[in-house]
Amino acid sequence: MTGGDGGRVPLEVDAPFDGVHEECGVFGICAPGEDVVADAYMALFALQHRGQESCGIAVNCDGVISLAKGVGLVGEVLTERVRAGLGQGSMAVGHCRYATTGRRQEGNTQPLLVNHLKGSMALAHNGNLVNARALREEFEQRGSIFHGTSDTEVLAYVITDARLHAGSIEEAVTVAMGKVDGAVCGVVMSARKLIGFRDRLGFRPLCIGRLGDDGWVFASESCALDSIGATFVRDVAPGEIVIASPGHDLVSITTGETQRGALCVFELIYFARPDSVIDGTSVQAARLRAGALLAIDHPVAADVVIGVPDSGIDAALGFARQSGIPYGIGFIKNKYIGRTFIEPGQNRRERAVRIKLNPVADTVRGKRVVLVDDSIVRGTTITRIVGLLRDQGAREVHVRLSAPPFLYPCYYGTDIESSDPLIAYKHSLDEICTMIGADSVGYLAVEDLPKLDATGHGSFCDACFTGNYRTATPPDDGAFPFETWLGEE
Amino acid sequence: MTGGDGGRVPLEVDAPFDGVHEECGVFGICAPGEDVVADAYMALFALQHRGQESCGIAVNCDGVISLAKGVGLVGEVLTERVRAGLGQGSMAVGHCRYATTGRRQEGNTQPLLVNHLKGSMALAHNGNLVNARALREEFEQRGSIFHGTSDTEVLAYVITDARLHAGSIEEAVTVAMGKVDGAVCGVVMSARKLIGFRDRLGFRPLCIGRLGDDGWVFASESCALDSIGATFVRDVAPGEIVIASPGHDLVSITTGETQRGALCVFELIYFARPDSVIDGTSVQAARLRAGALLAIDHPVAADVVIGVPDSGIDAALGFARQSGIPYGIGFIKNKYIGRTFIEPGQNRRERAVRIKLNPVADTVRGKRVVLVDDSIVRGTTITRIVGLLRDQGAREVHVRLSAPPFLYPCYYGTDIESSDPLIAYKHSLDEICTMIGADSVGYLAVEDLPKLDATGHGSFCDACFTGNYRTATPPDDGAFPFETWLGEE
Amino acid sequence: MTGGDGGRVPLEVDAPFDGVHEECGVFGICAPGEDVVADAYMALFALQHRGQESCGIAVNCDGVISLAKGVGLVGEVLTERVRAGLGQGSMAVGHCRYATTGRRQEGNTQPLLVNHLKGSMALAHNGNLVNARALREEFEQRGSIFHGTSDTEVLAYVITDARLHAGSIEEAVTVAMGKVDGAVCGVVMSARKLIGFRDRLGFRPLCIGRLGDDGWVFASESCALDSIGATFVRDVAPGEIVIASPGHDLVSITTGETQRGALCVFELIYFARPDSVIDGTSVQAARLRAGALLAIDHPVAADVVIGVPDSGIDAALGFARQSGIPYGIGFIKNKYIGRTFIEPGQNRRERAVRIKLNPVADTVRGKRVVLVDDSIVRGTTITRIVGLLRDQGAREVHVRLSAPPFLYPCYYGTDIESSDPLIAYKHSLDEICTMIGADSVGYLAVEDLPKLDATGHGSFCDACFTGNYRTATPPDDGAFPFETWLGEE
Amino acid sequence: MTGGDGGRVPLEVDAPFDGVHEECGVFGICAPGEDVVADAYMALFALQHRGQESCGIAVNCDGVISLAKGVGLVGEVLTERVRAGLGQGSMAVGHCRYATTGRRQEGNTQPLLVNHLKGSMALAHNGNLVNARALREEFEQRGSIFHGTSDTEVLAYVITDARLHAGSIEEAVTVAMGKVDGAVCGVVMSARKLIGFRDRLGFRPLCIGRLGDDGWVFASESCALDSIGATFVRDVAPGEIVIASPGHDLVSITTGETQRGALCVFELIYFARPDSVIDGTSVQAARLRAGALLAIDHPVAADVVIGVPDSGIDAALGFARQSGIPYGIGFIKNKYIGRTFIEPGQNRRERAVRIKLNPVADTVRGKRVVLVDDSIVRGTTITRIVGLLRDQGAREVHVRLSAPPFLYPCYYGTDIESSDPLIAYKHSLDEICTMIGADSVGYLAVEDLPKLDATGHGSFCDACFTGNYRTATPPDDGAFPFETWLGEE
Repeated sequence: MTGGDGGRVPLEVDAPFDGVHEECGVFGICAPGEDVVADAYMALFALQHRGQESCGIAVNCDGVISLAKGVGLVGEVLTERVRAGLGQGSMAVGHCRYATTGRRQEGNTQPLLVNHLKGSMALAHNGNLVNARALREEFEQRGSIFHGTSDTEVLAYVITDARLHAGSIEEAVTVAMGKVDGAVCGVVMSARKLIGFRDRLGFRPLCIGRLGDDGWVFASESCALDSIGATFVRDVAPGEIVIASPGHDLVSITTGETQRGALCVFELIYFARPDSVIDGTSVQAARLRAGALLAIDHPVAADVVIGVPDSGIDAALGFARQSGIPYGIGFIKNKYIGRTFIEPGQNRRERAVRIKLNPVADTVRGKRVVLVDDSIVRGTTITRIVGLLRDQGAREVHVRLSAPPFLYPCYYGTDIESSDPLIAYKHSLDEICTMIGADSVGYLAVEDLPKLDATGHGSFCDACFTGNYRTATPPDDGAFPFETWLGEE
Repeated sequence: MTGGDGGRVPLEVDAPFDGVHEECGVFGICAPGEDVVADAYMALFALQHRGQESCGIAVNCDGVISLAKGVGLVGEVLTERVRAGLGQGSMAVGHCRYATTGRRQEGNTQPLLVNHLKGSMALAHNGNLVNARALREEFEQRGSIFHGTSDTEVLAYVITDARLHAGSIEEAVTVAMGKVDGAVCGVVMSARKLIGFRDRLGFRPLCIGRLGDDGWVFASESCALDSIGATFVRDVAPGEIVIASPGHDLVSITTGETQRGALCVFELIYFARPDSVIDGTSVQAARLRAGALLAIDHPVAADVVIGVPDSGIDAALGFARQSGIPYGIGFIKNKYIGRTFIEPGQNRRERAVRIKLNPVADTVRGKRVVLVDDSIVRGTTITRIVGLLRDQGAREVHVRLSAPPFLYPCYYGTDIESSDPLIAYKHSLDEICTMIGADSVGYLAVEDLPKLDATGHGSFCDACFTGNYRTATPPDDGAFPFETWLGEE
Repeated sequence: MTGGDGGRVPLEVDAPFDGVHEECGVFGICAPGEDVVADAYMALFALQHRGQESCGIAVNCDGVISLAKGVGLVGEVLTERVRAGLGQGSMAVGHCRYATTGRRQEGNTQPLLVNHLKGSMALAHNGNLVNARALREEFEQRGSIFHGTSDTEVLAYVITDARLHAGSIEEAVTVAMGKVDGAVCGVVMSARKLIGFRDRLGFRPLCIGRLGDDGWVFASESCALDSIGATFVRDVAPGEIVIASPGHDLVSITTGETQRGALCVFELIYFARPDSVIDGTSVQAARLRAGALLAIDHPVAADVVIGVPDSGIDAALGFARQSGIPYGIGFIKNKYIGRTFIEPGQNRRERAVRIKLNPVADTVRGKRVVLVDDSIVRGTTITRIVGLLRDQGAREVHVRLSAPPFLYPCYYGTDIESSDPLIAYKHSLDEICTMIGADSVGYLAVEDLPKLDATGHGSFCDACFTGNYRTATPPDDGAFPFETWLGEE
Repeated sequence: MTGGDGGRVPLEVDAPFDGVHEECGVFGICAPGEDVVADAYMALFALQHRGQESCGIAVNCDGVISLAKGVGLVGEVLTERVRAGLGQGSMAVGHCRYATTGRRQEGNTQPLLVNHLKGSMALAHNGNLVNARALREEFEQRGSIFHGTSDTEVLAYVITDARLHAGSIEEAVTVAMGKVDGAVCGVVMSARKLIGFRDRLGFRPLCIGRLGDDGWVFASESCALDSIGATFVRDVAPGEIVIASPGHDLVSITTGETQRGALCVFELIYFARPDSVIDGTSVQAARLRAGALLAIDHPVAADVVIGVPDSGIDAALGFARQSGIPYGIGFIKNKYIGRTFIEPGQNRRERAVRIKLNPVADTVRGKRVVLVDDSIVRGTTITRIVGLLRDQGAREVHVRLSAPPFLYPCYYGTDIESSDPLIAYKHSLDEICTMIGADSVGYLAVEDLPKLDATGHGSFCDACFTGNYRTATPPDDGAFPFETWLGEE
C-alpha cells in the first residue's frame, strides 16, 4: 500500500472468475540514441498480461539511475508526465508484476533500485527463489534490513554482497546465480551495463532482440520485441548470463553444468501471449496442438466447439480442426469491464456474470457443446460458465481442459501456493464432472506435455501436475512465501 | 469541454485504425423496488461499444429527476460516489454517446434534462434528425435559446412545445414524432412515465425487456437486457411509442401508416454486439451469413482465413465454414491499449501498429491468407494490416469485406458525413486493391444485404451504399450537421 | 451534479463554522494580444473568496466562444490542460460561484453559454432577480425550456428575447435591464463585444480596469485588477451599461432615473477582500471604522482585543486602536484545512474545532478578552469559539460584532433566505449573550452603517438588518428561490 | 519520483517567495481503543507547516505494521480510502517532510518501515545526522544496501544493528543514540513499543501528551496535541529516550552527561506554529519579544508597522507595542494559491507577486512603513515586497528582521546548505539596504537571542548566525548531504 495510490480498492481484474496468476514481465534495453523510456513503456504494454498489479521503469542517464513505479496498470502509473520526469537515457529496465511472494505493498514493486558500496543497481526479476528464506535470515544475522517482503530484495542482497569481492558486476551476478535456487530470471542494470540472466533450468522465458544498429533488448516474451520494432535474435539459454553495454558486442557467460531445461509448461498453455515464440515454440501453435491432443484423447460427439475467452480460444480451435466439429464463437467478453468496474451491490452477483461474459444464444441453443478452457483451479468459474450455457439452451456441455489436473503447489513464480484449494486434489474426475455440472470432462494427459514443444520432445517443468520438482523445495512449515515476522517486541 | 473533464486529451480509442462510428446507446428502466441506478450503470457497460465519448444517467426519485453525466467512459464518469450521489429511484434513463452532430462539448452530453411549463423531462436519444436545422431556426425565431449544438436539444424543444397543447406527455411525443424526420429513437422520462419511441422507419434498434415481476426496460440492444438479468420481450416497432409507468401495464401508440422498416444494415454488420438480437435477427448469425456470402461470391484458393479483430472475426468464421478453408486466429489485439494509451513520439507511428495488433507469425508465414474485415472507409487501416501480414511472410493476402463499398453520406446517426474521404467513391476496385497492397479484394454485394436477416428477406437502410435515402435529406450546403453560427456582432 | 466532478463529497469549506455566503465573482476582459485566458484564471483566483463551489471561463476566439467550467475551486477545475484546450482569444469572461438560487448542479454553473437566433452569448452574473419566477413562467408559457434552476438562465432569456427586436446586443441588454428587478450585475460577451452591467441600485460591485494600452477589464472587485497588473479606472455606476470592443473606446449607456445607490453593506463588512476598493471606499478602512464605532458604542474594560480569523481581524484592530486596549493575535487558523479535509469520525466533532482554529494560550490566559467577529447567523460558531477561549483560561469574553443583527431575508444574492434560523430574530440581546456564553455582546448600530463609507455618508442596502427593501420583493410562498416544479405527470 | 505521484509538477509552495525550510514533523501515538490513524491524520494536518513535500502514517495492528505514504500534502496522500486501508490499531507513527538530505524521491519518504532479524520497526525522524556518511560507508563495507539517500535510512541501520546485540529495542535505541551525532529526534515503533527520542542537545523539539485515560502521544509541537484533544504533559528532555507501551507507565532512559540544550532558535523565530509551546516558551510570545527587541535596538520614526504574512506578523505586533507606532495589516495573502497554482506564462512573473500577496493601499499610501519579516536568505523576496510597498505609495520602508543575519550553513535539518547564496555572507548592511531598496534595515542582535526564551536566559543553537557549532561538522568536500555515488561500472 502506498499513499500515492493506496486509495484504490484492490480489485480482482477478472473476478469473479478465478485462475492462475503469473508473477512478472521483465524488460531491459541498452540502445544509445533511442528513446529508451518510450521503448520500455511500449514493451510493458505488450507484457501487461504477465502482471497487472504494479509496474515501473528505471532509466540510466549517464550512470545516474532514476526510477518511477507504482501500483496500477502501465497506462495508469507511467503517465506521460511521469515518463517525462524520468528524463532521457541510454539504458532502461521495466517490470510489471502480479504479487505472489510478498504482500501487496509499495516496497515490493519493481524494478528495485538499490545503492551499495560499488554503486547503484536496478533489478527486475521474474521468478521465485526457493531458498530465499534461508538467505534472508543469513543476511539479517549480519544486521541487514529489508524494506519489503519479496524475494527480489533477497536476490539484490546476494548480488551486491557478491559484488564486494567480485571484480565486476557480471562476476557478481555469476556468483549470485550459484547461491540462489529456483526460478531466477531477469535483468540487472548497473551504471554502465545491462545484464540478462536465466537460471540453470530456465523456468521462466527471456529472449534477446536487436533494435536498430546497435541496440540490445531483453524481454520475457518476443511480443514485446514486436511492439517496439525490435527483431528477435535468440532466447537466453538456461544458466546463461548475457551482458550488453553501449558500444560493445554482447558477452555471454555460461554457469553450471549443461542440462535439459525446465521451462514452465504453463507458459505455453496459459501465461504467454499467443503471438510470442518461447524457446523455439510458437505459443499459439502449442495451444492448437493441446486442443488437437484433447480431441484425440477425449473425443465426443458434438455440434460445436467453443473456447472460454481468451485462454481457451486457441485450444478450442485446435480441438475443432482435429475433430471436424465446427468451431464457434460462444461468448462475448465485455472489453470495457476492467479494474474500474465495481459490482454494484452484493446481491447482484449472479447477474454480474453475464455482464462480463455473455453466451451467444444462436451458437449454443439446442447444441451439444464442447467447451474448452485451459485449466480448472477451484472450479467456481467453470461451474458458472457451464451454467450460463445450460441457461442459454445448450443440450450437452463437454468440458475439455488443455492442461492436466493441478495437484501440487508451484514454487517457481505462480500463485498456486498449496494443494488444498485445488479441486482435482480432493476429487475424482467423476466428482468434478458432477460438481461443475458438465456432461463429461477431459484433461490433457501429462504424457502429452512434451508434444506441446515445436519438436514434439519438449522438456518442461510439470511439477504442479506431477509433484516432480527439479530443485530443492522450501521447508513445509506454512512460511512460504515468507511473510514479515512480527518480531520479539 | 468541461472543467471536470476538459483536461483529458481527446484520444481516438482505436487510433490509428479508422472506422465508422455510431452515435449512441440508450437505456430506460421503470422498476420500483429495484436499484435502477445500478441497472442503468450495468446496462451502459453492455452498451459502451455504441458510444465511448460521454455518458450519463438520470434517475427519477418521486418525480424529482437527478442527473449525472460527463465526458469519458462509463467506468470513469459514473463512479461509485457519483452513483451514490444520485440517490435511489423507481425510474432511470442512461445514455452513452459518440459525437456526430454537435462538437464535442459538455452541452451535448446526454441524457438531456430540461424543465418546462408542465414539468421536467429527461431525454436519451439515438439517431439524427434530418430536419433539425429548420426546426431549430423556427424555435430561434420565437426567441428560444440553445445551450448546445446537438439535434437532441431540438427534439426536446419539439416535444415540450407539443406538450403545451397536448393532454399528456405521450400525446406530446406522438405529435413530436410527426414533426421530426430522420432517425429518431430513444427514451423520454417524465415525473411519472417512461416512454420508448422509434421512428416510422426504425433506423435504430430499440427493444423491450422485463425485469422481475413488474419492471420494464428499454435498451438499444438485447445484450443490455442480459447484463442486468432482464428477459427479452420484443422490439419496439417502427413508428411505435411505448409507455411504461409504475404499477401499470405497457401502453402502445402506433403512429403513421404501417410500412416496411429500414433498420440500418450496418447495425448487423458492425455496430451491434454479436450476442444481441435485433428485430429478430442474431447479430452473430448475420455476420456468419455475410462471410458465407462472401465465400460464395468471391471464392479464392487460400490456406487460412483470418478476421481483423474484433469486427471481422465472425464473418471470417462464416467465410471459412462456407469455403472449407481453415479458420485461423491471425492477430493478437492488445487489450490494455485504451484511452489511456498515448503514443510516445510521432516518429514512432509505424511501430505503434504492432503494439495494438500483432500478427501471429505461425498462422500466416508462407500462407495464402484470406483477410476478412467489415468495411473500408479511407483505406489507411487495411493498408497497414495487409502490410503487417506481408512483413510476417504471408504469401498472398486476399481482402474480403462483409459490407458493400461506402459511397454516400449517412444522415441517420453515423459519422460518414460526406463522400469525399471514402476510398470507394473515388477509386475502382482494381485501384483499391493496388492501393491497399492486396492480391484481391471482394465486397459483399448490395443484393446480398436482405439475406443478412434471419428470414433472408430483410428490409434495411442501405443508403450509404446505394444513395437510396428513405427520408428527405438535409440541404447540401455544408451545414449539416449544423454548427453554431457566429452571430451578427 | 455532474459525472466529471460529482464524486466529490460536498464539503463545507469552513465547516463547522457557519456564516453568510455571497453568490458570485465575475470577470470580463477585452484585450487583443493578451493571454486573456491566463488573465481570467488569475483574476478568478483573486475572486475565489466570492464563490468556491463552481467556476468557469468562456473565451472568444474570432467570434467562436469556447467554455470550460465545472464544480470545484479554480485550481481544481481550470487546470493547465483545460486552459490550453480553450485556445487563445481576444476576449474572455470568468465566473466563480457559491450557489444560492438553484440547487447545486452542473446546469447552474457559469458562465452560461447560449446560442440564439442572432448568435452566441456568454453570460456571467452576480446577483439575484426578484422577479425571476414570473419571467420564467412567462417564457415557459411560450414553450421555452430551461436546463437549470438558476435565475441567470432567466436573465439570458430576457436578453436574447430582447435581441430579437433590438438593433444590437447592447440595446438588448438595455431593454432587458428594464424588465428585470433585483440585483443584476455582470458581464455579457457576444461575438464582438464585451458588456458590463450593473442594476439601477448597484447592489453588487463592478469596476473597470485598464490593461496595457488597449485592454479593458471588468471585475467584481479591484483586487482582481491588481492580480493581473491592470489599473483601476472607475466603478460601473448603478444603472450603467458599459460596452468594450477591440479597437474602440468604451461606450457608456445610462438607464433609468438617477438615484442614490444601494450597495450591499455586507460587501464592506464581510464579503469583499480587505485590499479591494468599492465605490470609493477601501474595504479594510471600512472595517477599521466599524471596529472603532463598536469601541465607541460598546466600550468595555479589557486586557486584549482579538479578531476571529479572517473576518474579524480588521474590525478588531479598529476596536483596539480606538479603545487603547492592546490588539492581540488570538487564534491560529490551520491553512491546510480545505475542501480536502474530511473530519474522521462523527464522535470527534468537538476535537475538530481546535484543528481548524486553535487559541493562542499565551494571549488569552487570565485575560479579559474582547472578541470581534463580523456577525452572528445561527450562533453555533461563536458559541464554540467563546468556549475555546474559556477553556484556554480567558477570564472574560466580550463579543463585539461589526454588523447589526440579522433579522430579515436577503433577496439580492446572499444565502440568508429566511428569518427563521437567525438567532437575533427570535432572541433578545441578553438571551443571545447567555446562549453564546459571553460576558457581554455588542452589535454595530444600523445608524452607524453610513459611516462605513469613505465620506461618512454612504447609501447602502441594509434590508437584512432593517427590512427596508428597495425593490419589490418576491411572493412569500416559500418558492423563493424557486426550485424545479415536479410537473403534472 | 514514483508512479503514483510522479506526474505532479514539483511546485514551490511559496514561490516566488524564498525562505528557509524545515525538514520534518513527527508524531507518535500509543492509545488502545482510540482511532489512532484518525489521530495521526489530524495531527499531521496540525504539523503540515513543518513539511509539505511528503507524508505518511504507519499503524501497528497487533504487531503487524502497515504503512501508507507518498509525495504530497496530508489531504492529498492520506485520503479517506487510504486511511481505511490501513485498518485499526493501537499504535501509530506519522511524519511530514520537507526534503533536505536526499533527493526528492519515494525512497526518502517517511515513516521508514524496515524488517530485520528481531522484527519490524517504523521510524519517523526529524533532524540530520552529521556523521551519516561515515556510518553509511561502514555499513556498505559490510555489504548493506540502501534504497534511498536519506540519513534516516542510516539511522534505521544503526538501530537495527545495535538490536542484534541488545536485549530490547529501547536498549538498541540507546546504543544507537551514542553512535550518531547531530540532530536526531523522532519516534520508533516496534511490534509492542513506541519510543520517542531526542538527541543530547535537543536541536529539534519533541513533546509528550496524554490522550484519554491511558493514551500517550509524542509530537514535534504542542499544537498537534491540541488538534486531537490531547493534553500537554512535558517536553522530552535533551538526551532522553521515552518508552510507551499499551498498559504500562512511561519509562524514561537518560543518555549522556547532562548539559545545556541547544534548541534551534529558528524554531521559535520561524518554523513552529505561534500557538505551540516549546521547551517552556510560547512561540508567539517569543516572536512578540523579538519584535520588541527590534524596536529597542533599531528604533525609527514611522507611521505604521506591518508584518509580512504569516512569518512576520507576530514580531510586527511586538515592534508596534514596544514602539507605540500603530500596527497595521499591510498585505492580503491569497489563501487559495497553493500547490495547485501554476503561474501561467513566464513573462508574467512580475504580475504574479500581487496575486499571492497584495498590499492594502489604504494602509501604506503616503506612510512611513516599518516592514517586519523573520529573516532574509537570498534577498529576492524582500526586494519584491519592498517594491510593492513603494508602488502603492509608501513614503519610506524600514525593514526589520526578527533574526540575526544568516552567515553559516546549518547541519541540523534545515536547507541552509552553504554560505554562498546568503546575502549577508557577501554584503554589508548598507549594501543589503541598497540592494533590497529599503530606507533602513535592522536585524535582531545575536546577543538578544537568549531573551526569546520565557526565562530570558535561553540556551539555543545559533550556529547559522555565529558558526558556533555544538557538534562535529561534516567533512567540507561538497558531499554533504551525500548523494548517490555513481559506482564503478
